[in-house]
Amino acid sequence: MPRDIIFGEIDGITEGHCFNDRKEMMPSSFHRNWAAGIDGNGTEGASAIVLSGGYEDDEDHGDEIIYTGAGGNDPSTGKQVEDQSWNNKGNAGLLKSMDEGLPVRVIRGHQHKSEYSPGKGYKYAGLFAVTDAWLEDGISGFKICRFRLLYCGQNDGRKTPEAIELSYARKNKERKEGVVVRIVRDTEISRNIKKAYEGRCQVCGITIKTKSGNYSEGAHIRPLGRPHDGDDATDNLLSLCPNHHVMLDKGAISISNDFELLGEVDGSLTIQEKHNINLTNLEYHRKIHGYD
Amino acid sequence: MPRDIIFGEIDGITEGHCFNDRKEMMPSSFHRNWAAGIDGNGTEGASAIVLSGGYEDDEDHGDEIIYTGAGGNDPSTGKQVEDQSWNNKGNAGLLKSMDEGLPVRVIRGHQHKSEYSPGKGYKYAGLFAVTDAWLEDGISGFKICRFRLLYCGQNDGRKTPEAIELSYARKNKERKEGVVVRIVRDTEISRNIKKAYEGRCQVCGITIKTKSGNYSEGAHIRPLGRPHDGDDATDNLLSLCPNHHVMLDKGAISISNDFELLGEVDGSLTIQEKHNINLTNLEYHRKIHGYD
Repeated sequence: MPRDIIFGEIDGITEGHCFNDRKEMMPSSFHRNWAAGIDGNGTEGASAIVLSGGYEDDEDHGDEIIYTGAGGNDPSTGKQVEDQSWNNKGNAGLLKSMDEGLPVRVIRGHQHKSEYSPGKGYKYAGLFAVTDAWLEDGISGFKICRFRLLYCGQNDGRKTPEAIELSYARKNKERKEGVVVRIVRDTEISRNIKKAYEGRCQVCGITIKTKSGNYSEGAHIRPLGRPHDGDDATDNLLSLCPNHHVMLDKGAISISNDFELLGEVDGSLTIQEKHNINLTNLEYHRKIHGYD
Repeated sequence: MPRDIIFGEIDGITEGHCFNDRKEMMPSSFHRNWAAGIDGNGTEGASAIVLSGGYEDDEDHGDEIIYTGAGGNDPSTGKQVEDQSWNNKGNAGLLKSMDEGLPVRVIRGHQHKSEYSPGKGYKYAGLFAVTDAWLEDGISGFKICRFRLLYCGQNDGRKTPEAIELSYARKNKERKEGVVVRIVRDTEISRNIKKAYEGRCQVCGITIKTKSGNYSEGAHIRPLGRPHDGDDATDNLLSLCPNHHVMLDKGAISISNDFELLGEVDGSLTIQEKHNINLTNLEYHRKIHGYD
């Protein structure tokens, strides 16, 4: 019987940890499938991948990896013999992880040829975020599913997604006056809220349909960070479509303590019975945006 | 006659430049109004601010500044005697700069008390982005308009908005598995596109109404950065609402060479006659998202 999928770090196994073989990753659910590169599925997401040289198209830049999805290859020769598909279980899992902001454990195998690969066994490279997914013509001529993964762990010495984005911005002279307008971040708590509402917006009820399911964003009522210092907590979070997220953040809408919408949208917030909302934070939002 | 407003760096005046007095900033349009803290207005945006100790509530953390807006104070004593308002010309200017992603030149005066202030005269602190605006009860008891500004210039040694955001994320243990879902960046070219469409979405025609005007996002057809390496150019940009921006980026919609919408939305793209769109990039977008 397969073990439950676990996302994020697993106790006792830190960055740089070496496994002698694939089977050693199974008891802890670190990677539950010794025969596949991707551990996961389209319903739950993917929790771990192994880079093992199986696909000639993988690119490894250390804190940024361009990963080739699963499927389409002849099991005996490993050669690509048909197009890959988003319906493949592993590919669907990585898409889900992208849309839900789930972290993926990356493991490099000794067969993988890069300056970061271990000489033997399998080395844990840390948590990565899936930030992009697209189709491409592979070296073989068949279509391959491609994923861009960026390091998102806690090692301060490594490049963050922001630093990687920034280095692009700085390399490209035309972008030199580029200003960050929005950074949308996801945490386990915001993922839970979005899941509870099935990716629907609590203001308008719509969802953004993507290849891998319903997309919404976790919106903080009292903003995080200086000077507001709101909590990343369920009672301070709403599931919103990107449009209403922007409107809430900019104060184009606010919410009364009876959950009536104020400002540019009429009606009231949809709230599930078990979703407690912090009224003091609603009050804070109204106050800073001049609704009182 | 007032000179035209200029955004961004001005030739010959680099970070750290010292002015002896406010009038020295006027001939170059560096800051055109020697009597006001904010240079700008709600139509064009604000291009420069001076921190001169006029408002007791200003907070200066170096690469992050919490700035108090203009108005509501007695001109002779400088004391706050009434509420500030978003309708004030300077405050409206900073809001506009926030929504359009316009960079603001920050100048510290010797009267401003912080470890970053010059001993005499006025020192140019570099380009900052306005990332937040809200109302607060000031020390005086009257409402004040507050702005959060983050350094966004080209000095690699200084903290970027991303680095500042990141330090919050790392300080807050509850956010340790936070994953960046979206980074929306603005450049002069994307601002021009959004302006041409008056902040309306080329897919659905809506705009996000904010205190300071119509909000839309500049969406790249062929993505920037590795491995797509799209251009930050007018013919690769669309003005989209956040919802359709997400859908384009995730391939939930694409566009034919006749500008018909493909995927989750019916109809066709609204395009102004003078807005040339790169058909090769449309083709690239369709290809990577499996529309061919």
